Amino acid sequence: MASFFGIGVGPGDSELLTIKAVNTIKNLDILYTPQARKNGKSIAEKIAAPYLPLKLEIKRRHFPMVKDLETKVRSWQEIADEIAVDVQTGKNVGFLTLGDPSVYSTFSYIAELLKGRVEIQTIAGISSFSQIAANLSTPLMLDDETLEVIPATANSAQLAEAIDLNDNVVIMKIATNFAKIYQILKDRNLLNKTIVVENASMAGQKEKVLADYSIDDRLPYFSTALLKKGNHDVKNN
Amino acid sequence: MASFFGIGVGPGDSELLTIKAVNTIKNLDILYTPQARKNGKSIAEKIAAPYLPLKLEIKRRHFPMVKDLETKVRSWQEIADEIAVDVQTGKNVGFLTLGDPSVYSTFSYIAELLKGRVEIQTIAGISSFSQIAANLSTPLMLDDETLEVIPATANSAQLAEAIDLNDNVVIMKIATNFAKIYQILKDRNLLNKTIVVENASMAGQKEKVLADYSIDDRLPYFSTALLKKGNHDVKNN
Repeated sequence: MASFFGIGVGPGDSELLTIKAVNTIKNLDILYTPQARKNGKSIAEKIAAPYLPLKLEIKRRHFPMVKDLETKVRSWQEIADEIAVDVQTGKNVGFLTLGDPSVYSTFSYIAELLKGRVEIQTIAGISSFSQIAANLSTPLMLDDETLEVIPATANSAQLAEAIDLNDNVVIMKIATNFAKIYQILKDRNLLNKTIVVENASMAGQKEKVLADYSIDDRLPYFSTALLKKGNHDVKNN
Repeated sequence: MASFFGIGVGPGDSELLTIKAVNTIKNLDILYTPQARKNGKSIAEKIAAPYLPLKLEIKRRHFPMVKDLETKVRSWQEIADEIAVDVQTGKNVGFLTLGDPSVYSTFSYIAELLKGRVEIQTIAGISSFSQIAANLSTPLMLDDETLEVIPATANSAQLAEAIDLNDNVVIMKIATNFAKIYQILKDRNLLNKTIVVENASMAGQKEKVLADYSIDDRLPYFSTALLKKGNHDVKNN
């Protein structure tokens, strides 16, 4: 049965797709992908490039990058309608997402607009925070520890609560509100327990402890912070 | 250079390994794996079975499943010492973990005991909560939402805080403290917003809303709850 597939391609390395993602991509008839500004290909499309079938029809569509949800939903609705027609005529239609389709992705909105109209399948991917931990060979959580994932766009009270109440905190896209978050962590003497990864799993990846930054530094868009309060050296437990 | 590899095999489906995990497994000389009780194979080993090289040497070792960390660390120390010798003699040594090696895994402890002695590499895997969201085709988080992952063994105050302060909460291994968690969610009128997935991505997988359980039900060990407070139907936004 023809379906609409949301496929996670992981955070950057083409080897980080799952076997299931690769097999799904090989059976696609049509791939919808965001129209990137300069060259034709989105990051997700570049990551999946080694696996795209030669005969695959690629439909590049404009996904507005604006704050206003209504504007976005209008253009997503048009794309969703086009996808519905394709699936209903028997085509397997794919939509690639960077990282994991369940983590802050446009796919979730498109899928919501298609629910009840076509069969939807989600193929999980490696999230950026999972890969950050793997790169550092540091656990995200152990034993009874908690992990909170919070976007840098959350308000100060939410960020402070997340930091105060959890053992481990991932702050997504920290560049957006760097000075604010730097100050919250500085006030709690946690700059030394926070690792910042710039461009995780992409060219130009860099890891630095937050204490090595200044509050007015400007970071790349794909920068993520990982706060780990505990010292997980089991030898000293 | 010979290394010690922690390899995530995902939550159950052999197609959910990454290409990188499969390639890493194919280059292993030795695989350490927990000695399971009845038949010889751990769940992780069964999941990876299609990819294990014929000449791979498999060392099944006893990993005690006890509460006491000291007892566990003692037996991990012996295994870590044996792994160190293997890697130092030029062997690529692997250790499989169910799900993601960065998420509540024994690998993190073994790696800690081996830091500075051998080269360590972590190969990320699909976590159980990522696959649960994929199975349900429901987002873990959208926009400015937060996600907290908390084990069912956390105390009541921590569980209540996690539930009160986050948009989305994953409660791992909910079977351990089912009645307590059921009551906390019932008190907040959230039973209908919580999905329980039994045996995620394994044979016997079952999804049910928490409201369809009774407080004294007994659940399988690999059961996870996903609380989603928001209604993510963008059509009604």
